[in-house]
Amino acid sequence: MSIEMNQGRMEELSRVYRDGLLEDTLPFWTKHCVDHEHGGFMMSLDRDGRLVDTDKGVWQQGRFTWLLGELYNNVEPREEWLELAKHGAEFLDQHCFDPSDGRMWFHLTREGEPIRKRRYAFSESFAAIAYGELAKATGEDEYADKARMTFKRFVDHNLNPQGVEPKFTEVRPTKSLAFPMITIATAQELRDSIGLPDANEWIDRSIETIRRDHLSSELRCVLETVGPDGAFVDHFDGRSLNPGHAMEGAWFIMLEGKLRGDDGLVKTGLQMLNYSWEHGWDEEYGGILYFVDSKGLPVQEYWHDMKFWWPQNETIIATLMAFLLTGDEMYGQMHSKIHDWAYKHFPDPEHGEWFGYLHRDGSRSSSLKGNLWKGPFHLPRMQLTCWKLLELERV
Amino acid sequence: MSIEMNQGRMEELSRVYRDGLLEDTLPFWTKHCVDHEHGGFMMSLDRDGRLVDTDKGVWQQGRFTWLLGELYNNVEPREEWLELAKHGAEFLDQHCFDPSDGRMWFHLTREGEPIRKRRYAFSESFAAIAYGELAKATGEDEYADKARMTFKRFVDHNLNPQGVEPKFTEVRPTKSLAFPMITIATAQELRDSIGLPDANEWIDRSIETIRRDHLSSELRCVLETVGPDGAFVDHFDGRSLNPGHAMEGAWFIMLEGKLRGDDGLVKTGLQMLNYSWEHGWDEEYGGILYFVDSKGLPVQEYWHDMKFWWPQNETIIATLMAFLLTGDEMYGQMHSKIHDWAYKHFPDPEHGEWFGYLHRDGSRSSSLKGNLWKGPFHLPRMQLTCWKLLELERV
Repeated sequence: MSIEMNQGRMEELSRVYRDGLLEDTLPFWTKHCVDHEHGGFMMSLDRDGRLVDTDKGVWQQGRFTWLLGELYNNVEPREEWLELAKHGAEFLDQHCFDPSDGRMWFHLTREGEPIRKRRYAFSESFAAIAYGELAKATGEDEYADKARMTFKRFVDHNLNPQGVEPKFTEVRPTKSLAFPMITIATAQELRDSIGLPDANEWIDRSIETIRRDHLSSELRCVLETVGPDGAFVDHFDGRSLNPGHAMEGAWFIMLEGKLRGDDGLVKTGLQMLNYSWEHGWDEEYGGILYFVDSKGLPVQEYWHDMKFWWPQNETIIATLMAFLLTGDEMYGQMHSKIHDWAYKHFPDPEHGEWFGYLHRDGSRSSSLKGNLWKGPFHLPRMQLTCWKLLELERV
Repeated sequence: MSIEMNQGRMEELSRVYRDGLLEDTLPFWTKHCVDHEHGGFMMSLDRDGRLVDTDKGVWQQGRFTWLLGELYNNVEPREEWLELAKHGAEFLDQHCFDPSDGRMWFHLTREGEPIRKRRYAFSESFAAIAYGELAKATGEDEYADKARMTFKRFVDHNLNPQGVEPKFTEVRPTKSLAFPMITIATAQELRDSIGLPDANEWIDRSIETIRRDHLSSELRCVLETVGPDGAFVDHFDGRSLNPGHAMEGAWFIMLEGKLRGDDGLVKTGLQMLNYSWEHGWDEEYGGILYFVDSKGLPVQEYWHDMKFWWPQNETIIATLMAFLLTGDEMYGQMHSKIHDWAYKHFPDPEHGEWFGYLHRDGSRSSSLKGNLWKGPFHLPRMQLTCWKLLELERV
């Protein structure tokens, strides 16, 4: 019972993504998460928007600020979006940097007092793209400076961490897919918003790292954690694939291929998608699994077989992009499978937005709409990206 | 359809626990986990005993060594158990201490090279009870010295951590139930094995901490994480209860009450049990949940509603002990519920031992029998403790 990806289906999907973004996801957050008293956003919301924890995650401050600026710059210049984006950036400025070392925090109280900083520096990457959109929206150099500064701190800290106690000894050094992958997306965003001069170099360098060290044609997978030289680490951590993460990387690279008209990049992205589908698609229940062992052995992480919202979001983007770039109906079928499974299980028919955490069989594990990890990012980015991809197709 | 806890049922249960320990759990591990080449034990086994990761967790080295010594000292002096316990202690001595600061590692390679040390010091508590049993079994002072030394390092590091970067800032300091709870059990074991002189003081102090700071009659729960003075922390972490952990603490304290003939201690343990059952027992599917919010709000940890093996083990002990101490049939009924649910879902009928990780509905999430966290500890300790409790009852 397969749905053909024809003009009618594409128009229907385009509406689903656009209306979902503008009439469901975005209103849920703008209505419930804005802290008018202390600034910034409170994302720990239950299914009906009720606040369950006043703490603020720094990732989510940057991500929502980015989304609002992105919508203002690329959908329509609604003043309320720009105002909210400025509200987010103000909280970033005032509370999210540690003056003692310039690094960003990870977790704050409602009032902006710091609770936790992490060993890595992804708060910086999300702040960078937020500042970038505000620079583009307002034309103010100060935002562009902050975007460049936080991007620099993101890459500097990841390449050469200072002042943090390493989690592991030097006995079995490893590196993760996250850094090159997030570097690609961050540089793509900053190239678009502030014309970051060395964006292409960072993207080239990151894609080269992924191709050389993480993409294994022997194991037919994208390795999440490898040795510094790309060696396979035959232990729990080194064998654990994160197919949703690899799907995300796949579409970043396909997008780069599309923008540059570079078929080699598109092929790399397709290969990452194919491998990640082979490992990640759950043949028994549907949906993309969180962690899968590259050799089919058991995984150590407890939530390995849960269905989180974001791997589905990233797979929906990757498969749609693959279909539109290649016209290959195989990708159209994959897109239908993941789209239909996700839309059957994740949306909350009563209060809108998506649930975040389902069991393997698609039943609900938690009623949370947001927390330190989930906020208005993967879902609305998927809705925006897929809507725009389909809209371009119709032109 | 309730089973009365009569003489026949108790005799049947005693057999189930004893035979399970000696004919199922113990042989599974002695057959599959011993590393004859590099020493110590490799616990990352699949359901059939096949090795899936050669790395060694330090907790499990200490815990299995303790179990073997405990069996030698309290069940029967089988030479093979003593030899294996010495084999474990030798690996602890040779590889599990960091010479640079005397602290113990958490995670090693097969060869004993260090991969990770943690901020806390529970490796030390498990090593302490392992050395204690060997001191009792062999009469050698050197083991007793090591038991005292590692116990001292365990309490010293937890009360005054040195040389570790704290995970959180000073903005919202908290403390956990784990330290006083593990201190009770460790001191009880060392009092029994080496006559630790200040064992009772440590136990009294820890019980006082739990009663004063963690046991909340207002919220009817045992708080896992509280402020330094026991204040309720109304955020995800402060609200998250760990009912299996509190059940474990409950029987440590009931046991202390039983040994001292102190009804007040028994009552504290019963109260902890009652509260933890109210929050932790899953009325819908059965079994004890991993995390539950004390106010009924959603929990942030992903695996909150999974059924892990060890909370069931600890609840089986706590409810049986409560029944035998009070004769109250309510506890007999609780024991039947948790015993029957656990024995229906966790044992592996094909290869023996228990699975560790089930979904909320009791279906299996992972085929692993062991990893860095699961090894021969909670299950065999439950089997031994319950068997011995029931055996004493018959005398």
